[in-house]
Amino acid sequence: MTVFLVGAGPGDPDLLTVRAARLLAEADVVVHDALVGDGVLELIPATTERIDVGKRPGRPTPQDDISGLLVNLGREGKHVVRLKGGDPFVFGRGGEEALALAEADIPFEVVPGITSSIAAPSAAGIPVTHRGVSAAFTVVTGHRRTGEPDVDWRSLAAVGGTIVILMGVSQRATIAAELIAGGLDPSTPVAAVHAATTDRQVVGRWQLADLAAAPVESPAVIVIGPVADLDLTPTR
Amino acid sequence: MTVFLVGAGPGDPDLLTVRAARLLAEADVVVHDALVGDGVLELIPATTERIDVGKRPGRPTPQDDISGLLVNLGREGKHVVRLKGGDPFVFGRGGEEALALAEADIPFEVVPGITSSIAAPSAAGIPVTHRGVSAAFTVVTGHRRTGEPDVDWRSLAAVGGTIVILMGVSQRATIAAELIAGGLDPSTPVAAVHAATTDRQVVGRWQLADLAAAPVESPAVIVIGPVADLDLTPTR
Repeated sequence: MTVFLVGAGPGDPDLLTVRAARLLAEADVVVHDALVGDGVLELIPATTERIDVGKRPGRPTPQDDISGLLVNLGREGKHVVRLKGGDPFVFGRGGEEALALAEADIPFEVVPGITSSIAAPSAAGIPVTHRGVSAAFTVVTGHRRTGEPDVDWRSLAAVGGTIVILMGVSQRATIAAELIAGGLDPSTPVAAVHAATTDRQVVGRWQLADLAAAPVESPAVIVIGPVADLDLTPTR
Repeated sequence: MTVFLVGAGPGDPDLLTVRAARLLAEADVVVHDALVGDGVLELIPATTERIDVGKRPGRPTPQDDISGLLVNLGREGKHVVRLKGGDPFVFGRGGEEALALAEADIPFEVVPGITSSIAAPSAAGIPVTHRGVSAAFTVVTGHRRTGEPDVDWRSLAAVGGTIVILMGVSQRATIAAELIAGGLDPSTPVAAVHAATTDRQVVGRWQLADLAAAPVESPAVIVIGPVADLDLTPTR
């Protein structure tokens, strides 16, 4: 009788929360994104209804349709899990879906997930904060939608912390140019992590000046700052 | 034979990752912080050795001692879980401990956790990003240690995203003044979340101009930005 907006984490099913794993096992229907890891989707029981609303090139599902679907499923009294890559409130549009459910008087609850903005750097051995190196980090989307508030990249360059960019592969030349114009050293270390925490993970490392021409496969999490030089990967 | 640096999440044991719950059940010894939730500590089997290295006023454990302890336990061939509130790489000093282990040639691995910087606002119904309202968020510590890199609060005020401050209760007057000096509107909504995701959770909401005098109990996560006016709490 409740719609749960659930974070699926970065990809590895072991990085689901205990709560998310339990909700998935108990759901009547799971409505999921394109960004949810295959290993996570495999945890959904075969008898559970599964609806893929992933926004993909050439086959987009408008956000209003997704919110409407959740409202309708909620009205049917089903135990609905709306599964989102990462965390529902980190560029997951969970806020919009929660508002639509609240307006329709459908009970809902938000269950946080491990955000790839922190877990992707971590999987590449990069701490977003590190004593003596970075005392702040900013997570920002490189994907600018119409009506979206602007991010002042030049001010961001002056903050002095780590910069983590989601959905920024196609905009990386512009972003790098703006950050350099804002005073960030062109030799600042940069890393990009594709398919983090899965067996397809690829990590690339460059300097900020080389990011525009660097071969980065989308989707990737881009990390900019001195921490991107660290490599604290498992030593087992 | 490995030291696992594990994020314990914001407090609620259901917000542990599946992996963290499994590692806790299998550990020979658990070395934990003051910030780990009581409900999480209760999951540690009674037969497992438990070492509290929480840094508390009047009884601080120097970081070097903690790193040394982990190295020694690792050398003894034990299955060690180093449990940290939130995520090990978000002001958790996980990077320092990982470096110490790497230098001593002790196998280690970092397991991300749900960071309270996102989960605490979420538990108060506040999405750190929201379509049309915030397309970026910065997480910053208010606690300035000697030798720590500076954060330029005035530049941060100009970035245009949500600001999340950890360990900033005692510095909130200075931080608010700097952000206002940097151009942030004194009427910007602010929220503070104490003991997030536990049954002791308290949420307060004010305007930025009133933050200095607001009654905020430490530790708390402070959220600054238009999203702090949202209240997407469960409606069950």
